[in-house]
Amino acid sequence: MKTSAHSAGSLFLESALAVDSAVMPSDTILPWFEGRRLAHRFRLEPIPFKDMVKWGFDPKTGNLCHESRRFFSIEGLRVKTNWGQIPEWEQPIIVQPEIGLLGFLTKRFNGVLHFLVQAKMEPGNVNMIQLSPTLQATRSNFSRVHQGRAPLYLEKFTDRRHGRVLVDVLQSEQGARFLRKRNRNIIIETEQNFAVGDDYCWLTLGQLLRLLRYDNLVNMDARTVMSCISYALGPGASPEAVSGRFGQELWRSFQSVAAGRSSNEEIISWFTEQKFAFDLDVERIPLGTVREWVRTATEIRHETGRYFSVIACRVEADNREVSAWTQPMVKAHQRGLIAFVVKDFDGVLHVLVQAKVEPGNFDVVEMAPSVQCITGSYENEGPDQLPPFVHYVLNARPDQIRFDTLQSEEGGRFFREENRNLIVEAGADFPRELPSNYIWMTAGQLKEFIKYNNFVNVQARCLLSSLSFIEMDK
Amino acid sequence: MKTSAHSAGSLFLESALAVDSAVMPSDTILPWFEGRRLAHRFRLEPIPFKDMVKWGFDPKTGNLCHESRRFFSIEGLRVKTNWGQIPEWEQPIIVQPEIGLLGFLTKRFNGVLHFLVQAKMEPGNVNMIQLSPTLQATRSNFSRVHQGRAPLYLEKFTDRRHGRVLVDVLQSEQGARFLRKRNRNIIIETEQNFAVGDDYCWLTLGQLLRLLRYDNLVNMDARTVMSCISYALGPGASPEAVSGRFGQELWRSFQSVAAGRSSNEEIISWFTEQKFAFDLDVERIPLGTVREWVRTATEIRHETGRYFSVIACRVEADNREVSAWTQPMVKAHQRGLIAFVVKDFDGVLHVLVQAKVEPGNFDVVEMAPSVQCITGSYENEGPDQLPPFVHYVLNARPDQIRFDTLQSEEGGRFFREENRNLIVEAGADFPRELPSNYIWMTAGQLKEFIKYNNFVNVQARCLLSSLSFIEMDK
Repeated sequence: MKTSAHSAGSLFLESALAVDSAVMPSDTILPWFEGRRLAHRFRLEPIPFKDMVKWGFDPKTGNLCHESRRFFSIEGLRVKTNWGQIPEWEQPIIVQPEIGLLGFLTKRFNGVLHFLVQAKMEPGNVNMIQLSPTLQATRSNFSRVHQGRAPLYLEKFTDRRHGRVLVDVLQSEQGARFLRKRNRNIIIETEQNFAVGDDYCWLTLGQLLRLLRYDNLVNMDARTVMSCISYALGPGASPEAVSGRFGQELWRSFQSVAAGRSSNEEIISWFTEQKFAFDLDVERIPLGTVREWVRTATEIRHETGRYFSVIACRVEADNREVSAWTQPMVKAHQRGLIAFVVKDFDGVLHVLVQAKVEPGNFDVVEMAPSVQCITGSYENEGPDQLPPFVHYVLNARPDQIRFDTLQSEEGGRFFREENRNLIVEAGADFPRELPSNYIWMTAGQLKEFIKYNNFVNVQARCLLSSLSFIEMDK
Repeated sequence: MKTSAHSAGSLFLESALAVDSAVMPSDTILPWFEGRRLAHRFRLEPIPFKDMVKWGFDPKTGNLCHESRRFFSIEGLRVKTNWGQIPEWEQPIIVQPEIGLLGFLTKRFNGVLHFLVQAKMEPGNVNMIQLSPTLQATRSNFSRVHQGRAPLYLEKFTDRRHGRVLVDVLQSEQGARFLRKRNRNIIIETEQNFAVGDDYCWLTLGQLLRLLRYDNLVNMDARTVMSCISYALGPGASPEAVSGRFGQELWRSFQSVAAGRSSNEEIISWFTEQKFAFDLDVERIPLGTVREWVRTATEIRHETGRYFSVIACRVEADNREVSAWTQPMVKAHQRGLIAFVVKDFDGVLHVLVQAKVEPGNFDVVEMAPSVQCITGSYENEGPDQLPPFVHYVLNARPDQIRFDTLQSEEGGRFFREENRNLIVEAGADFPRELPSNYIWMTAGQLKEFIKYNNFVNVQARCLLSSLSFIEMDK
């Protein structure tokens, strides 16, 4: 392992504050991105299940699998829990036991850390391409089960002589859709010189943070890796880029690592209590036997038409390892709402975190956003029927809203799924008493829990990456 | 939650350094303990499976269960892994999905924190009674499935108005014997006055740490809860009780929380790599179908007679919730060896930690002692056939040995199982190159990982609790 005079935390902080010193001028990013979109031919078309190639339903179980039994499969899950309103149900679930690899390669230019960003096509993406980490790969990609090309830059991550590790941690994916899926989130700093491909460019963290303000531009994989970044924040005055009351409160929130309204030990005790109190008993069952779900020629859906369906797609692309293939995808039937309520306590911004049980969770509960739900289900219901704080965030005044953007879920498995991401500042009218599975934390405390496996769920991590301490007042 | 002028860490440090100011003179502890042993009648007798009451083999699966289907059961497990020498095997495993509760009630006397210690009988204990936490209970105990009395002091832990929480975290148990079992390790500080039962006494942490030097005296549950304690260690000179070169190095080791030879981030990256590299695929199977294991009238054992067996026992006791019962127990066939190799780097003691896969692990690998194995299997083998460092620790010179004590495993499930616990100081001859699943850490770093779920295994935690920074030179 190479040593460096600069800690990872200080490199990240400098990069987050750097916009003008970036090697790629900020006003050229979107034109470059549009150029990449036009340079490639992509085509996606839903097809009947019977037209899938190399994919099919296992005759015994009804599970939807690849003939190699690799990649992923759609199976059934029976869920029993004492969390929430519904004690028992069955549903399809994506089973992908392999740990995936999501990595940014970084390098210093003019002393400032830059991230190698890829304009990457994923079949389910809104707009087909989005800004992505340098590498998104599964072990099946490494071993080239699909007989395609090896992903670019793979060797920079698998062979550590290429650089030093700044971040390297396992993180969970959507517990409502995946059974205990995890990805390895990595950031490597290299000092090597190499030419980058046409679909890649070097951006500072500050540029990436600004791009998060656009709908469906920075993909989920990039957002989760960015969420693993911790800044080296000394005490003392905040830099110029941190302006306004809200920016200052947020800056102090990132600096409050060991204590906020609760100490880290108190938060761990609260979280232990949640794991002790809630049962989650899941059992994998054959997809063919899942109750209340029906299979037609083109989809597997719930009898009521709610939740999501499993569909089949044919994909054509000219810049992927394999240029044409078919695969199953999961299509959401309702748009979701993902929101943090934030509030100033003694000049330090706090984030309202929920302990949430989801069936595919690795360890019963994870720390989730203040609100994480599908909104369609509640359209005809009064405020009393809604989950906590949904009514509050949907009725926030414009001056309370600090972030409001549509963000995509992962385009490799999800068909054009986007969720509204909201950050809402609580007013004096916000309830003081919280349900027992909610707690206030600082941004610095949440970052600390992200360092360890399976504490913070993917929705909370991605939304936290949007809570940049710069320009939140603009 | 009550507030206190004293942090948990400083209360623990004061208590660890306090011996003379304890409410119970140290020289009266062992006589009191012997008195408790004589005051009760205990009887344990192995019986044929058919003489068990309320326990039996399920006719369909052959699983050994209680008629209520509560408490625990003995089932089968099929294991596949790329860790170690054996890629696939089947074995019996203890399944106990409930999270247990292990708790010390503490209280300040003369300003010094004291721990309420119980002289508790467990059927499998060597010497029948051992020093135990205030409370050992499962949810079945709470709900009184066995129709007995509720455990003493239970309400002090379940109703938080009784005190403030000093420690509260989930920890794993033996991954070779239990399927993903976890316990909640709790320490509560109370300010209430109450009389304590005959089987209880108040001891300081310093007294408990000294008692760890006796064979089979402090039980596993007490040791794991003690391992969750973090001390508030400021920089600067060490207290008088910390004496000698080794004591000073160890004191600095506890103080090195954020960095040792590796930073915490580097350790997390190393651990992520281990989870990425190793597969652990386990499947619960009926006990009746487990290959290579045979069931006789009195035991379930491996064909070769190695590893362990499952037996049935009848227990009589006069100070338990229920005075007589039968239950299955697990009986080890060979004594185990649990050792930390420790080494000074720049004046700071480091502990050699192994990433170890065990079939019942919650998350593939946990941080384990430098050596953790059964020794009987290796008696006739040369040094090359032994797991790493076994030969080294078994051949250490007397002046390298800092701790050498027999410690018991949990007596509620294990029949008189004791393991040799060793702490060996590495000499100049110790290899510089380590296998890739080993790493040097400070005691402070290991303590930091213990704060989070399922990082450090029970053997490493219990042995770490023996690595007291006082009197290690004596």
